[in-house]
Amino acid sequence: MSFVVMKFGGTSLADLERIRNVACHVKREVDAGNKVAVVVSAMAGVTNQLVAWVREAAPLHDAREYDSVVATGEQVTAGLLAIVLQSLGIPARSWQGWQIPIVTDNAHGAARIKEIPGTRVRERLEQGEVAVITGFQGIEPERNRVSTLGRGGSDTSAVALAAAVKADLCDIYTDVDGVYTADPRIVPKASRLRKVSYEEMLEMASLGSKVLQTRSVELAMVHRMPVRVLSSFVAPEALEPVKAGTWDGAGTIMCDEDEIVEQRVVSGIAYAKDEAKITLLKIADKPGVAASIFGPLAEASINVDMIVQNLSADGKFTDITFTVQEAELPRALNVLKSVQKQLGAFDIKSSSEVSKVSVIGIGMRSHAGVAAQMFKALGEKGINILAISTSEIKISVLIDAAYAELAVRTLHSLYELGKD
Amino acid sequence: MSFVVMKFGGTSLADLERIRNVACHVKREVDAGNKVAVVVSAMAGVTNQLVAWVREAAPLHDAREYDSVVATGEQVTAGLLAIVLQSLGIPARSWQGWQIPIVTDNAHGAARIKEIPGTRVRERLEQGEVAVITGFQGIEPERNRVSTLGRGGSDTSAVALAAAVKADLCDIYTDVDGVYTADPRIVPKASRLRKVSYEEMLEMASLGSKVLQTRSVELAMVHRMPVRVLSSFVAPEALEPVKAGTWDGAGTIMCDEDEIVEQRVVSGIAYAKDEAKITLLKIADKPGVAASIFGPLAEASINVDMIVQNLSADGKFTDITFTVQEAELPRALNVLKSVQKQLGAFDIKSSSEVSKVSVIGIGMRSHAGVAAQMFKALGEKGINILAISTSEIKISVLIDAAYAELAVRTLHSLYELGKD
Repeated sequence: MSFVVMKFGGTSLADLERIRNVACHVKREVDAGNKVAVVVSAMAGVTNQLVAWVREAAPLHDAREYDSVVATGEQVTAGLLAIVLQSLGIPARSWQGWQIPIVTDNAHGAARIKEIPGTRVRERLEQGEVAVITGFQGIEPERNRVSTLGRGGSDTSAVALAAAVKADLCDIYTDVDGVYTADPRIVPKASRLRKVSYEEMLEMASLGSKVLQTRSVELAMVHRMPVRVLSSFVAPEALEPVKAGTWDGAGTIMCDEDEIVEQRVVSGIAYAKDEAKITLLKIADKPGVAASIFGPLAEASINVDMIVQNLSADGKFTDITFTVQEAELPRALNVLKSVQKQLGAFDIKSSSEVSKVSVIGIGMRSHAGVAAQMFKALGEKGINILAISTSEIKISVLIDAAYAELAVRTLHSLYELGKD
Repeated sequence: MSFVVMKFGGTSLADLERIRNVACHVKREVDAGNKVAVVVSAMAGVTNQLVAWVREAAPLHDAREYDSVVATGEQVTAGLLAIVLQSLGIPARSWQGWQIPIVTDNAHGAARIKEIPGTRVRERLEQGEVAVITGFQGIEPERNRVSTLGRGGSDTSAVALAAAVKADLCDIYTDVDGVYTADPRIVPKASRLRKVSYEEMLEMASLGSKVLQTRSVELAMVHRMPVRVLSSFVAPEALEPVKAGTWDGAGTIMCDEDEIVEQRVVSGIAYAKDEAKITLLKIADKPGVAASIFGPLAEASINVDMIVQNLSADGKFTDITFTVQEAELPRALNVLKSVQKQLGAFDIKSSSEVSKVSVIGIGMRSHAGVAAQMFKALGEKGINILAISTSEIKISVLIDAAYAELAVRTLHSLYELGKD
């Protein structure tokens, strides 16, 4: 017998037919003797409709009211799934975020979970009742208001609940059957990873792989909670019921790296298209100049990623190139214009026609030469590298957007990540 | 300065444009210095969609889950209206039933309000913040579950809240501009009542006038809360702001009868089409026979309205005629079939082709002859009376459904209720 948290996203709950399919996945686990808590998103499209209404009501709006409105989508699916489970003879009840309670801070619209008292739900699970819990939301206790975790927050809810009820496994059901070595739409030969370490998954999530929300991966890593990614779009009977400790089978399991026996040097290739590059030309080269540029950007909450600095030919001036999220480019340019007035004249150039391509793998720690191989392969294809950033287990390069898919395919072959 | 509760139904909140119109009605009161709590229904059609999903999930379903799902509609409109009010510069916040809390019993789907601690909301109102409160719902405190009051329950929420916050007036905004002497679709000359007593309104509500929910009228009567019915479909500036104690102007005000100076003998004519008649023929006439029939019906929670009993020609048998709600006719017939087995043979006849037409007026208490006039006028039109029931302030007759509209028009002229 295992304690399992099963999380289902909006496409898995898009209508009553799909909700019934989800109920059959839950029934498979209950029939095998497992204790199950289910975390649900809103029906696909519903949250978008609610957000559109809020924006129509007023472009600038109280985030507490926004949360109160958009949190209703999950309440609907939680109640409906509980009813369908009951109709299959499975004891079940729905729980809203405030009923558990899932306690969050007061950053409405992008709240962080602070605490989940899990004993009450755990007791009900032990008695054999399935708990159907609204994802994406909680309660801010000081003002007693509903809060939401931001888009994609249901993954985070699921992992946090799994930790709170001391589950053996957190299964994230989605519309893909696992984590791949690269985006299969770009690399048809991409293969499913059976296991991936938290560290690798964290890099993949933050580097543009959309399978899991970054915060949910961080949380799983902190709690060492095994998290599996698998598809709800298979027949419920095609999957084996969960058996704690044995992770073989469907999907991709995210776990401690020492549980991954056969390690590859490189596990996957990620890419992100929503990058923008800013180049500042001919800045007077004096101490403190970097601080005067990146300080104001940080104050405006603009994340700066890669940074490259070069001296200009005559040595008196310097050029600085860095990247920001494409969506933040207009705000970043505004901040830089006000800096321009203080620092004296420099030129600003920007482009959103850039992509970031990354090679990820925990094996890189003990293997030299991965970066060199990468730069050589890209060079041979005539792909120019605009900036580089690295961590212990990843190398990212910024390139012209037009070459992004070629780069991904090239690197996927280079590290022999394909099937067979 | 007055404390006002304003309640808006689903057609008044059907889309953002209508919600903005509602906000302008609220603004008119706030600008006049009034303190306002707003009670909202769900957008028109939304609750029906939610109910349809629940029924599709399972025809027999847990009422607690039903409540959890259908209560979301009001959460959406409450949040949206709060946002629109804020955008007009009016401090406002939404309150869900469990946040106030509106404490109910555990009869999920048709819960009754037990208690509303009103001081916290009252304090916020005094500070000038508009409270936008979800109608139709509350919380059952023992299991901490969301409960709903049944369809039309938002009227009851509004009156209960008005009593809890000690409001001066409860304004119910709807799609008609008041209570009429008869249904204007049947009697084009029907006139709007300026004032109506609680007792009269209670009879009208329970006799088929759909303007207010019966329970809300009972509650208003218990608390002696002045309730006004008026239309949200007029320009917000066309209405005068509320001034406590002066009820002249738009709509119909429901108040104590001693506040109604010019009393008419008859105030209005109501009719109900959803009646069904059951006749039991040739029952052995012995003591206790009525109890053996109406006891089992009461146990099955079937409301019996009018009852007529006649001896048959030979004196050994009796015939009993009574009415039930049309929707309960099949259940009533089932109960009677089981009674038939115990009491011995009798015949059962039933018809739903009957209507109940009622004459209502507090003046009837001190005026004899109202009934005699009524029976004579109906007789002159050739309308046969199948059953009669009376109270201190109303006379109801059951007639063939085909004559219902003729009867209403006849009685409306008889008591001179028309315009001019």
